[in-house]
Amino acid sequence: MTSVNYFELQGRDGEARVGRLTTPHGVVRTPAFMPVGTAGAMKGMHWREVRDAGADIVLGNTYHLMLRPGAERIAALGGLQRFTGWNGPMLTDSGGFQVMSLAQLRKLSERAVTFRSHIDGTSYELSPERSIEVQRLLGSDIAMQLDECVRLPAEHSDIERAMQLSLRWGERSKRAFEKAAPGHMLFGIAQGGDVPELRRASARGMVDTGFHGYAIGGLAVGEPQAVMLAMIEEVVPILPSDRPRYLMGVGTPADILEAVARGVDMFDCVMPTRNGRHGVAFTRFGPVNLSNARHADDPRPIDEESSWPSTRSYARAYLHHLVKAGETLGAMLLSEINIAYYQDLMRGIREAITQGCFAQFRERARADWARGDIAPR
Amino acid sequence: MTSVNYFELQGRDGEARVGRLTTPHGVVRTPAFMPVGTAGAMKGMHWREVRDAGADIVLGNTYHLMLRPGAERIAALGGLQRFTGWNGPMLTDSGGFQVMSLAQLRKLSERAVTFRSHIDGTSYELSPERSIEVQRLLGSDIAMQLDECVRLPAEHSDIERAMQLSLRWGERSKRAFEKAAPGHMLFGIAQGGDVPELRRASARGMVDTGFHGYAIGGLAVGEPQAVMLAMIEEVVPILPSDRPRYLMGVGTPADILEAVARGVDMFDCVMPTRNGRHGVAFTRFGPVNLSNARHADDPRPIDEESSWPSTRSYARAYLHHLVKAGETLGAMLLSEINIAYYQDLMRGIREAITQGCFAQFRERARADWARGDIAPR
Repeated sequence: MTSVNYFELQGRDGEARVGRLTTPHGVVRTPAFMPVGTAGAMKGMHWREVRDAGADIVLGNTYHLMLRPGAERIAALGGLQRFTGWNGPMLTDSGGFQVMSLAQLRKLSERAVTFRSHIDGTSYELSPERSIEVQRLLGSDIAMQLDECVRLPAEHSDIERAMQLSLRWGERSKRAFEKAAPGHMLFGIAQGGDVPELRRASARGMVDTGFHGYAIGGLAVGEPQAVMLAMIEEVVPILPSDRPRYLMGVGTPADILEAVARGVDMFDCVMPTRNGRHGVAFTRFGPVNLSNARHADDPRPIDEESSWPSTRSYARAYLHHLVKAGETLGAMLLSEINIAYYQDLMRGIREAITQGCFAQFRERARADWARGDIAPR
Repeated sequence: MTSVNYFELQGRDGEARVGRLTTPHGVVRTPAFMPVGTAGAMKGMHWREVRDAGADIVLGNTYHLMLRPGAERIAALGGLQRFTGWNGPMLTDSGGFQVMSLAQLRKLSERAVTFRSHIDGTSYELSPERSIEVQRLLGSDIAMQLDECVRLPAEHSDIERAMQLSLRWGERSKRAFEKAAPGHMLFGIAQGGDVPELRRASARGMVDTGFHGYAIGGLAVGEPQAVMLAMIEEVVPILPSDRPRYLMGVGTPADILEAVARGVDMFDCVMPTRNGRHGVAFTRFGPVNLSNARHADDPRPIDEESSWPSTRSYARAYLHHLVKAGETLGAMLLSEINIAYYQDLMRGIREAITQGCFAQFRERARADWARGDIAPR
């Protein structure tokens, strides 16, 4: 059983792919990095900056939005795009991941997960069907199936049980999604922890169900990069090559580059904004910690060759001062600088794949990251 | 003894005045409202937004900057404008007010005030001469004399002693300023608490010393508006009409309007950004508290006729959500909305004075504020 395909594969270079995903709110160029607008807002950034930085699509967290301000309220206000002012494609997660990590008094059954809000203790029930309904109310362009993500390390039996439950929830999600308006998409999620045969079984079951796109979940939860990449290598060959592939919650620039090299098309992560709030800039030459005293008197910008104005204009000394003084502007500038770096990386990746020189791009990026920051003055 | 005059009085309407103040970093249209960029940053705003909102000049706090990152460091980095990226006129206060309100272990003598930093306990001495030196190192376009501001209510003798000390410190500040580069300005500050004869004596002494401009300090510290306006009426007639007049730390839109009606040209206040961080928007129809539940489902903007995009585009429901969720974007949007409202008010004031209809403008503004916000839906 398959679904309408909104993905156009435009080119390959090795396993790396370049493509276009067409959503009701516009086209997403892949490989794509989706900044995370948790509760209907990017932390420390205006939506216009997210767009200017080159992002085609952002991610909204269903758990946060269903608790506050509420899915029915957002629907009455015209949906997430109208509500927030982000007038582009939006992917929403299922809510499951935050239920596991944030909510109180969780209780999981075959039918649904019940929990209490971490904000005010209100009781909620999240079933695969309710998750799809909430994401429809939000006006999501790409909805995710509800799944169960197991924290690693875990017992084989626990990983297998959660993986099988996720497959059954995927089928129920797909049935619930049948009423969705044309153009909207539903992605399945492969689980299976760090166990190769469970990853493969999960991928096969998910493909049998048939989705608009396929996600790999339950990774970047603390395991070594090598394990993550190995699991991608188990799953990707099983996925249909004409559908988009999304590695959830990943990651560092190096994680993204390596996953692209293994055939992944979409990513999301809070790292660029979260690390920005903690004084760290991602750069061509690796992460730079602006709170370090070496920057206090340094008039040089983070990267004078960057295409992003704030990256090449603000002095390190100023950014250092803002971080040390706890000024909001420091978090604002480093968040936009990091989102712009991630988008610049994705642009470089797409161009390299298109031009058939992804291997050289990858080697160059790794060498630059390994070189490290410019020497102190 | 007088100084070079950089102020051009362009028109009057009653006591209200419109003019231009030319600084090394550009022209300031008066009446002017100066947003406060405390420690080299506007809280929650990019400098370009401050400029776009219509601000010609901003204020920097000498106390904060001399403690962190340090005046000598900022000088080595090319001055405040180069350091921060605000490429316009900047006024700096003397540091005295924050020494009184924030620093620890203050000790005041005829010569100077010694204190310990509220950040790390380091000992500092701030004399009139050192304050001028620090402001020169910062690259300030308009420096303020060091003064002593007394908290009201206070004893007559305390108010008089502080006022006399401020006059002597004004003379020393002026001597220290003689080495300043041409184009830079020094303003004196009239003190005298809520005592008419002390206010008049302070103003006369200050005018005898002779400054590029004249400030009224020690108001908006908790006294009723009527007392503040009465003190302005004592001081203004003594000031030379060809010099700019600056009411420090003021205030609400109504305070500003009434002070303009009494001949004041310049203002600064943290209120638009501070109240913005607490969920309050200043509007043509008075303050609106976005954290109020009445806005939760309201798709209407704060003011659909505003010239500022965020004021007329973002739904109240979205702003309410951001405030309740503690999202940084809420503080960012309400700060820019408030700074834009203040600048819009100043633009309206300047146009009305120029056109000779300030009285009508004032009546209309008061009537609008009294009308209050639109009715809930």
